[in-house]
Amino acid sequence: MIEIKIKTKKRNELIDITNQIKKIVSKTKTITGICVIYTPHTTAGIIINENADPNVETDLINALEKIVPKINYLHAEGNSDAHLKSTIVGKEKTLIIENKQLVLGTWDGIYFFEFDGPRERKIIVKIIKEK
Amino acid sequence: MIEIKIKTKKRNELIDITNQIKKIVSKTKTITGICVIYTPHTTAGIIINENADPNVETDLINALEKIVPKINYLHAEGNSDAHLKSTIVGKEKTLIIENKQLVLGTWDGIYFFEFDGPRERKIIVKIIKEK
Amino acid sequence: MIEIKIKTKKRNELIDITNQIKKIVSKTKTITGICVIYTPHTTAGIIINENADPNVETDLINALEKIVPKINYLHAEGNSDAHLKSTIVGKEKTLIIENKQLVLGTWDGIYFFEFDGPRERKIIVKIIKEK
Repeated sequence: MIEIKIKTKKRNELIDITNQIKKIVSKTKTITGICVIYTPHTTAGIIINENADPNVETDLINALEKIVPKINYLHAEGNSDAHLKSTIVGKEKTLIIENKQLVLGTWDGIYFFEFDGPRERKIIVKIIKEK
Repeated sequence: MIEIKIKTKKRNELIDITNQIKKIVSKTKTITGICVIYTPHTTAGIIINENADPNVETDLINALEKIVPKINYLHAEGNSDAHLKSTIVGKEKTLIIENKQLVLGTWDGIYFFEFDGPRERKIIVKIIKEK
Repeated sequence: MIEIKIKTKKRNELIDITNQIKKIVSKTKTITGICVIYTPHTTAGIIINENADPNVETDLINALEKIVPKINYLHAEGNSDAHLKSTIVGKEKTLIIENKQLVLGTWDGIYFFEFDGPRERKIIVKIIKEK
């Protein structure tokens, strides 16, 4: 199990962690297996989406903001929107490792999704080796 | 593979299953590995979110209810909203086990999410041991 | 790792891939383990939901279409809605294999979810055998 630490700078922010995850796969000398990525926070997520055009990131942030319904939230910390977004996009993802590499599409990037920043955050990576 | 049975009491309900999953991890004497949690129902989900303030649960239930659009649903059982919610939050989650324990954040709880209760429901847990 | 190729015919479409995944589990002679299903595209998803009544599929497609907010999207390809839907439903799922079979509920089907078709698409399947 390996821990990554990051600092977010905005309330809502997408941080590309693809290279950090690739380095972990490489360092552990995994030939084939799976890689579980988990963030132990309840107001953040882990997603896989396009990392070519930064506009996709902005669109995702803005669209999720609009999806949150304007209702009377009870949770006193005022971040119920962040808990909801985390529940919608999820905070764990399982990826495949083959030929010593993460299996990702041409445009796939792995992102930490901050919904209640700025904060110091952790991402935990666990690799299960087949060989 | 271990099966948990629960009874839900409301149409929409979050049931904290964290301790039941922790007990399974403990009983199987897993040191490190992963834990897949799956519910074999199409109108329910498995999520990980805050289990400190019960208001977070109420906010999640109410917000998801509002997200379901009011369109003309075709499915005759009248529970298309429940199928949609299940698809949005997901019904399988993969967690990491390290040092004989589930890796969870301070506020993380594992929940069964009922969207079409009350019903008798099942949750299936599979542990892949690394050692 | 095994690759499935499919052709989608519409912009938004659900394609049942349950039997193809079951065949892979069978061919690999897995007794128990897990099965990771991943699609390497940023405008598609993998979901598990009811495959009994085709109306559930239509309802899911129509409801997700309505959930996408009408905001000013920046991404010039005009498919920001598809990236958003992919992020909401997810593009990887982990299933349990027990007694030589995928663990699925009575009504569970595994689907490829196209959000920006028609296109040629890939699905990647990785099985981690316990035995």
